[in-house]
Amino acid sequence: MAAVPAAGAPPAVTETNSGRREELLARFHEVRNFSTRLTEHLAPEDCVVQSMPDVSPTKWHLAHTTWFFETFVLKKWMSGYQSEVPEYAYLFNSYYNAAGDMHRRDLRGLISRPTVNESVRFRESINAHIDDLVSGADDRLLDEMEPIITLGIHHEQQHQELLVTDIKHVFAQNPLYPVYRERKIDKRKIDMSPLRFEEFDEATIEIGHDGNDFAYDNEGPRHRALVLPFALANRPVTNAEYLEFIQDNGYSRAQFWLSLGWMAVNEQKWRAPLYWIERDGEWWNFTLSGFRKIDMNEPVTHISYFEADAFANWKGARLPTEFEWERAADKIDIDGNFVESETFHPQPSNSLTQDRQLQQMFGDVWEWTRSSYSPYPGYRAEAGALGEYNGKFMCNQYVLRGGSCATSRTHIRKTYRNFFQPEKRWQFTGIRLARDLT
Amino acid sequence: MAAVPAAGAPPAVTETNSGRREELLARFHEVRNFSTRLTEHLAPEDCVVQSMPDVSPTKWHLAHTTWFFETFVLKKWMSGYQSEVPEYAYLFNSYYNAAGDMHRRDLRGLISRPTVNESVRFRESINAHIDDLVSGADDRLLDEMEPIITLGIHHEQQHQELLVTDIKHVFAQNPLYPVYRERKIDKRKIDMSPLRFEEFDEATIEIGHDGNDFAYDNEGPRHRALVLPFALANRPVTNAEYLEFIQDNGYSRAQFWLSLGWMAVNEQKWRAPLYWIERDGEWWNFTLSGFRKIDMNEPVTHISYFEADAFANWKGARLPTEFEWERAADKIDIDGNFVESETFHPQPSNSLTQDRQLQQMFGDVWEWTRSSYSPYPGYRAEAGALGEYNGKFMCNQYVLRGGSCATSRTHIRKTYRNFFQPEKRWQFTGIRLARDLT
Amino acid sequence: MAAVPAAGAPPAVTETNSGRREELLARFHEVRNFSTRLTEHLAPEDCVVQSMPDVSPTKWHLAHTTWFFETFVLKKWMSGYQSEVPEYAYLFNSYYNAAGDMHRRDLRGLISRPTVNESVRFRESINAHIDDLVSGADDRLLDEMEPIITLGIHHEQQHQELLVTDIKHVFAQNPLYPVYRERKIDKRKIDMSPLRFEEFDEATIEIGHDGNDFAYDNEGPRHRALVLPFALANRPVTNAEYLEFIQDNGYSRAQFWLSLGWMAVNEQKWRAPLYWIERDGEWWNFTLSGFRKIDMNEPVTHISYFEADAFANWKGARLPTEFEWERAADKIDIDGNFVESETFHPQPSNSLTQDRQLQQMFGDVWEWTRSSYSPYPGYRAEAGALGEYNGKFMCNQYVLRGGSCATSRTHIRKTYRNFFQPEKRWQFTGIRLARDLT
Amino acid sequence: MAAVPAAGAPPAVTETNSGRREELLARFHEVRNFSTRLTEHLAPEDCVVQSMPDVSPTKWHLAHTTWFFETFVLKKWMSGYQSEVPEYAYLFNSYYNAAGDMHRRDLRGLISRPTVNESVRFRESINAHIDDLVSGADDRLLDEMEPIITLGIHHEQQHQELLVTDIKHVFAQNPLYPVYRERKIDKRKIDMSPLRFEEFDEATIEIGHDGNDFAYDNEGPRHRALVLPFALANRPVTNAEYLEFIQDNGYSRAQFWLSLGWMAVNEQKWRAPLYWIERDGEWWNFTLSGFRKIDMNEPVTHISYFEADAFANWKGARLPTEFEWERAADKIDIDGNFVESETFHPQPSNSLTQDRQLQQMFGDVWEWTRSSYSPYPGYRAEAGALGEYNGKFMCNQYVLRGGSCATSRTHIRKTYRNFFQPEKRWQFTGIRLARDLT
Repeated sequence: MAAVPAAGAPPAVTETNSGRREELLARFHEVRNFSTRLTEHLAPEDCVVQSMPDVSPTKWHLAHTTWFFETFVLKKWMSGYQSEVPEYAYLFNSYYNAAGDMHRRDLRGLISRPTVNESVRFRESINAHIDDLVSGADDRLLDEMEPIITLGIHHEQQHQELLVTDIKHVFAQNPLYPVYRERKIDKRKIDMSPLRFEEFDEATIEIGHDGNDFAYDNEGPRHRALVLPFALANRPVTNAEYLEFIQDNGYSRAQFWLSLGWMAVNEQKWRAPLYWIERDGEWWNFTLSGFRKIDMNEPVTHISYFEADAFANWKGARLPTEFEWERAADKIDIDGNFVESETFHPQPSNSLTQDRQLQQMFGDVWEWTRSSYSPYPGYRAEAGALGEYNGKFMCNQYVLRGGSCATSRTHIRKTYRNFFQPEKRWQFTGIRLARDLT
Repeated sequence: MAAVPAAGAPPAVTETNSGRREELLARFHEVRNFSTRLTEHLAPEDCVVQSMPDVSPTKWHLAHTTWFFETFVLKKWMSGYQSEVPEYAYLFNSYYNAAGDMHRRDLRGLISRPTVNESVRFRESINAHIDDLVSGADDRLLDEMEPIITLGIHHEQQHQELLVTDIKHVFAQNPLYPVYRERKIDKRKIDMSPLRFEEFDEATIEIGHDGNDFAYDNEGPRHRALVLPFALANRPVTNAEYLEFIQDNGYSRAQFWLSLGWMAVNEQKWRAPLYWIERDGEWWNFTLSGFRKIDMNEPVTHISYFEADAFANWKGARLPTEFEWERAADKIDIDGNFVESETFHPQPSNSLTQDRQLQQMFGDVWEWTRSSYSPYPGYRAEAGALGEYNGKFMCNQYVLRGGSCATSRTHIRKTYRNFFQPEKRWQFTGIRLARDLT
Repeated sequence: MAAVPAAGAPPAVTETNSGRREELLARFHEVRNFSTRLTEHLAPEDCVVQSMPDVSPTKWHLAHTTWFFETFVLKKWMSGYQSEVPEYAYLFNSYYNAAGDMHRRDLRGLISRPTVNESVRFRESINAHIDDLVSGADDRLLDEMEPIITLGIHHEQQHQELLVTDIKHVFAQNPLYPVYRERKIDKRKIDMSPLRFEEFDEATIEIGHDGNDFAYDNEGPRHRALVLPFALANRPVTNAEYLEFIQDNGYSRAQFWLSLGWMAVNEQKWRAPLYWIERDGEWWNFTLSGFRKIDMNEPVTHISYFEADAFANWKGARLPTEFEWERAADKIDIDGNFVESETFHPQPSNSLTQDRQLQQMFGDVWEWTRSSYSPYPGYRAEAGALGEYNGKFMCNQYVLRGGSCATSRTHIRKTYRNFFQPEKRWQFTGIRLARDLT
Repeated sequence: MAAVPAAGAPPAVTETNSGRREELLARFHEVRNFSTRLTEHLAPEDCVVQSMPDVSPTKWHLAHTTWFFETFVLKKWMSGYQSEVPEYAYLFNSYYNAAGDMHRRDLRGLISRPTVNESVRFRESINAHIDDLVSGADDRLLDEMEPIITLGIHHEQQHQELLVTDIKHVFAQNPLYPVYRERKIDKRKIDMSPLRFEEFDEATIEIGHDGNDFAYDNEGPRHRALVLPFALANRPVTNAEYLEFIQDNGYSRAQFWLSLGWMAVNEQKWRAPLYWIERDGEWWNFTLSGFRKIDMNEPVTHISYFEADAFANWKGARLPTEFEWERAADKIDIDGNFVESETFHPQPSNSLTQDRQLQQMFGDVWEWTRSSYSPYPGYRAEAGALGEYNGKFMCNQYVLRGGSCATSRTHIRKTYRNFFQPEKRWQFTGIRLARDLT
């Protein structure tokens, strides 16, 4: 996952007072500090492990997000800047070919140094340099730097989400099932609303970001598209509903599955969502608050696109397109269960919101769409390393919308396009159903 | 690749004369015989080899297309029908889970029996049964059977194309470079037209098959779509043009490539299209007429989606969407260099056609589009084994349009959607460029 | 498997009459013809398949053994000799680095040409050249050539054994279970002798070939060795005895197995010898005469070293060393069930021989020894390509003794050292138990 | 690597005073403390990484050696003993099938908990229990326990060697090249003795351990063997000598290599010993004291059996058998550069010892022998979990003799048989040449 400021973003307005610098630095430090906060309860040993190639060690996330500011801000605009440890440029580049050679992604868990403490020192050193640079910048320099620093802030928020989902995967490998954060028990009785479908007429609408304030380049250009009539479920599919699919032998009936999905089911012996385990006839799951019984009212999560699609087929429905989703989200406020709540797990639909036509569109679980991740008409990646943020991944991935319980509220947008390969399950991914209307 | 009659296909008209039966059987035998004709110059040994999992042995194609008629026609409608060799149902089922267990695809080259002769006997036996069944069918039975027999005929034509591309791959493994069919030398001097772009306005058009006569289910439902303004190249990219890309180090510059494409380039050490070899500074390629120097005027072929996309990026263009392609093909006649010409290789743009706005839209090379292979709005696969023909492959593949020198002229349609994974290169695949118009 | 004339072999005695030439050519043609005879009942399609990397296609064996004579005899001694197809030198070199580059072993099944007929023509052409060369050779040249031609003859006999075991493996992949040769039914009632152990005293003995007549270089130098007291079983282990091991859960009890063997059992899911299949509670096996029920009196075969060793541990015994075996074989005539009998399967101990102290030491099944395949003291491989015949394989293999039902009677010797990796099962391998005597 | 007390070990002599307990506990604590000492300079992050399946994380070594005492001593003899964390039995069992299920070896680097501190607490807890158990044991119980505790002590010493070689491999993955222990510079000028061969006559000798005091079961039974005349090099091969082999293109000439070795060279692209890197025409190597230029006088180390064998072939020599080595070591004192010196690297032959006939037989580098690791005549593994220590690994490994700079002086014996697969290079392995004498 990665990003570039949308080409259409307007040039920063020139100001003469220092408020703009302070605001930028405040936002910068707030987000930088939140990364550290997420590691507070971890031991140094936890921060080293890479449990699969998709996962990065916690300390790699801490260093990589810092490398981003060093590489794309300090090395470019701070005259005389010298890296303290030049090898970091190699170790902490993720995938930017234009920024030089890089360490192999699948070997990140073999690198014990820099230690966590050394990584934190690296963060502090770069933070201080950014402070100096921004504080002393004239308006013209600030105009140049602000979009890149803003991009770096959003980039760090993406890695915060990964840090959370990655440490969950790491802990899940351990039969001791470590706890990342104790659960806050919510005693309120849940009274789940039944699954309903909201209907939408045919319309030619504007899709994509309009270019005011920050967005990733993949959200544009804004353009018109014809959306045929459809219906969309009022809320995500729950564990209870997904369990019916399991109990109806959904995982052993080829007719519901894409061909590649059926191969994944058989090769990887999927029988339930990731982190689910059956013990003595009951289903349990591993959460960031430990190992516990399935809560039937929670949205189902940690499922692949293949499972989402198969469930929808079994249910006689389908997944929405990303245009349908964006159209439906048009009038809805962005609130919900985000990482700021520090529950680190999707929650049952809140009874307070159950009268809404569409619940939990934001937060809780990313919603798989049936749309392949592909460029919008007129899209063109920028030249240079930052052009590698998004465009080069537009192949064999599917778009997800709405954010999850590990996403920052200040990070998500209605036009936000997250994307993963259809077999991935370690993100907080879920299902919202759709239907054709003729 | 596979297919189901479009849901909208009209019921066969009832006739009282025998012409309809004769016509169907004539078409049936014509296509069945062409399969045998394609194997005429092969030794039995050639017909056994599976040179990679994507490739099937020639004799497997002969038997599998026959199994199709046995399974979906004879077993269903011929009372008292008994398979001579029941194990064939296991050996020659390709991927129809609903039709029973099947032999592993990647192990087809380990099966020496039935021999080629025995496979031909199997074909003749099934042909005779179909003759009997159709000749004796009343109109009601014929109404039921005709769509399935027609589907079987189109299915066989798809396998004829694979038979040709597969034997090319088999022969290419052999340093003796066997010749499949001697080349007919065309002495005419070629005067290539320069690359031009034809422009198209924005329009809301009908996409997909209208349901009259045969089409695969993935070509429907016919539906409206908004196509923004674009320009399309007048002809496919030639070897000469592609060679410029190679010589400009296109294969070693990451910035042109999708991330997955860049991995493929490096892991598989791609430096040119499949079957190209550099000897003493000159480029040669293996063709079905043997090993020979590159003809600079031929359309480039045997390239992956990744290479097509990278070439387009290098050229400052892009690939068309399948809707753009279908729009552009609207007024164009279906003719060109098809398998019936028995050249088994794409040909330079014929000077006779060079005044056309769009040349070689049909035949010669399949044209990669940037469209992921996905269901049209309202698409739903049928229940049962034949529902597995198309729908379950709608993931991680790209659509190709227009047919190739290995496609039958009677098989292709303007709405025809071929599809392959973006890394595949053994089909006759090529490039037609497109551009945005703002 | 491969060979070089023992270094100590005496120079060929000079003769003045032509008898020596005739004798050599007679032997040459007899063995060459037997290769062709072994392919008589095969279809061309059978001769192409390589069912695993260890297996070579039948037509590869026909060509490779011919390449041996072309490369090491004709190219060396026939002045002006020109290969008809120079690429054969690449396609049919097996592993002789000093003889040039070679085609990848695991890709032999992808090569359909030369066809079987073309391979036979290649054989005939080389045979004719050898005829000419030997017939016209003076004594001095004959002295030089005879050891290499003799080596080529023995080399061909080794490949005849492989041809038989390889086609068995090929046919076993096919659910049609083709028959290689119809079984000759032996109606005599078998009355198996009970398993007994013959005892041997400590002795310092001579081990290895004495250098008279032909032997492979790995059988020498002859040298003294101290052999401690031991006991050796009177006959190989039978299917009945091996079945007891299976039924006592031998394949699921780690304590009997070498660590690598236990990994093989679990990774490859071994539950019985290769080619055994359980159907409705009864054990069947695939033989070169088709699929049939296990004959309880036959020696067990198609087992790995790991299985032989585990069986011996379960039985409270062990495998013999190759020195113990050679000592025990000292006084025993070389007869038994060899390939000349054309049964192509091990036979129950013949009642006529049951009074012998040691039965079936030769033929029927190769007997795994616990001796790693390593050089005898003073052994040194020759320089040049033929030095690659044996020495370079002396690592991670175990020695087998005595020959099998697929070995030529004229090929085996008491000092003969066959060798395979401990996990291999597709040869006719079996078990003779031994015990320590204190 | 693993071990069981030799069957012939005499029962512990009964004593009435407490000296025997104190001595055992003193030895126990000395060795246990040395494990902790070896980790003193490591960060917690260093102790988690598993850089390849052969390597275990430092903290796994700390816990596994502790598990050994818990499982085989406390659980057996301490009444009412309860594990504090029962899952440790699963996490820290290495390969003892009879002791229950175990965590997959190649996944040890995914387990961040217990942390290093928790592992140290586990060690202290088990140590205290052993103190109590031994202090309070009567003589009869002590007789039973002492051999197992002694085995546990030797087992821990083996893991100390692995801990050192494993952390070297871990650090070598990191381009920052961390230093494990600063080098003590030895300023004395080295004057290398030339390579000489000492000759030995034919003899029938006793091989193996005589059963007094501790030895592993694989060192017995002691038995007679005939050793033919041979010559043995006076010292190990140096880096200077090995470099000649490299410069003579030893790594690209197939004729020196075993077939499997040649495959390893080509697949793994070996061009020099492990940890050697060529920079600007000079050879450097990574050591536990950091990255530095090759010292030409040091014994070459980190080479596989394949490289040792190829070097010997190139030199016109061979590797010794383990019997030859044991015969030659008969009169030599066990001293040398062991782990107690804390150099953690082999040293040049000390000039003080250069007058010795055979230098550096002990310490510095393990010496590959040409002997496959196989059971001595009459060897039989014990029943139960501790019987898995050695016997089950007697396949596809080669014996090494003499210990290394990472071995404890109190751990090695003249009869000690270390063993590794022929492709392994991460131990401190080297070469001593031998020759045949006729």
